Amino acid sequence: MADDFPPLARSDRESVVARDDKLELRVWLRLLTCANLIERQVRAGLRETFDITLPRFDLLAQLDRAPDGLTMSAISDRLMVSNGNITGLVDRLVAESLITRAPSRQDRRRARVKLTPAGKRAFDAMTPAHEAWIDAMFAGLARQEMAQLLDLLGRLKRSVQEEVPTDRRAKGDPS
Amino acid sequence: MADDFPPLARSDRESVVARDDKLELRVWLRLLTCANLIERQVRAGLRETFDITLPRFDLLAQLDRAPDGLTMSAISDRLMVSNGNITGLVDRLVAESLITRAPSRQDRRRARVKLTPAGKRAFDAMTPAHEAWIDAMFAGLARQEMAQLLDLLGRLKRSVQEEVPTDRRAKGDPS
Repeated sequence: MADDFPPLARSDRESVVARDDKLELRVWLRLLTCANLIERQVRAGLRETFDITLPRFDLLAQLDRAPDGLTMSAISDRLMVSNGNITGLVDRLVAESLITRAPSRQDRRRARVKLTPAGKRAFDAMTPAHEAWIDAMFAGLARQEMAQLLDLLGRLKRSVQEEVPTDRRAKGDPS
Repeated sequence: MADDFPPLARSDRESVVARDDKLELRVWLRLLTCANLIERQVRAGLRETFDITLPRFDLLAQLDRAPDGLTMSAISDRLMVSNGNITGLVDRLVAESLITRAPSRQDRRRARVKLTPAGKRAFDAMTPAHEAWIDAMFAGLARQEMAQLLDLLGRLKRSVQEEVPTDRRAKGDPS
């Protein structure tokens, strides 16, 4: 799969930006470029070092932080992908005994998913490398710059959430 | 498709972060959350308003800024996705007469893809709405904050690019 991706090039998502473009559009495309670049490196690192896909790693990471397990809808919220995409992922990790799914009698979506001890060990073996890759990619920023970036992204996150049309807002997750 | 996505919820990619996590990881997960949130709104807006997918819109946007057209590999670089993913997308837009592909005798990857007048009209009809959505999502940030964010993301982008393993660096795109 590594060869399937283009090498890092001088052109990227930002190539669409003209000098006279609005600041909002320029920030958005640079943000997207950074996210794409970092995600691509993490994806490649996980594949090359641990032979695991990014969605699997992301799911294990969410479950590692939830000792009581998570419902399918909570996983879907946290990974920000559809329930349909989660179902197959969970099925495969259950088949490999990395996670368990305790069904709910009332509602399939309320089945609780948890890490098994084997899943926990597999995840713990990957976290130091994952953290080292992220650290290395941020090495060009001073701590103060990272803190500033965290703050500005927090403002942006709130701004985006306030702008969401009412019918797409959270209706309260029962999980 | 709209119903296939979870509503915006209080939990998201950042839910994996613990208070004691490193700043680098916290910035990365917040960056990813912002990119996911904005992309989801743009995707929904394009689908609901223009019945067009985000990859199609992105391709038209890149071609709109390249009056001489782009090779398949240049498109792949700019959209930061694999050549394989671009081929089907280009095929479908050619079939709808929104773009043309002038084949190269030497090399299939050097075929030049251009907007047709119909493609240009379709794209021009969408840009005001797209710009308005982005503007609205950034409305909570002052211009100075956006400028600061653009600058910090520029530093991050350079930092990530400097960290890329040598074998994954650009080898110079012939396009």
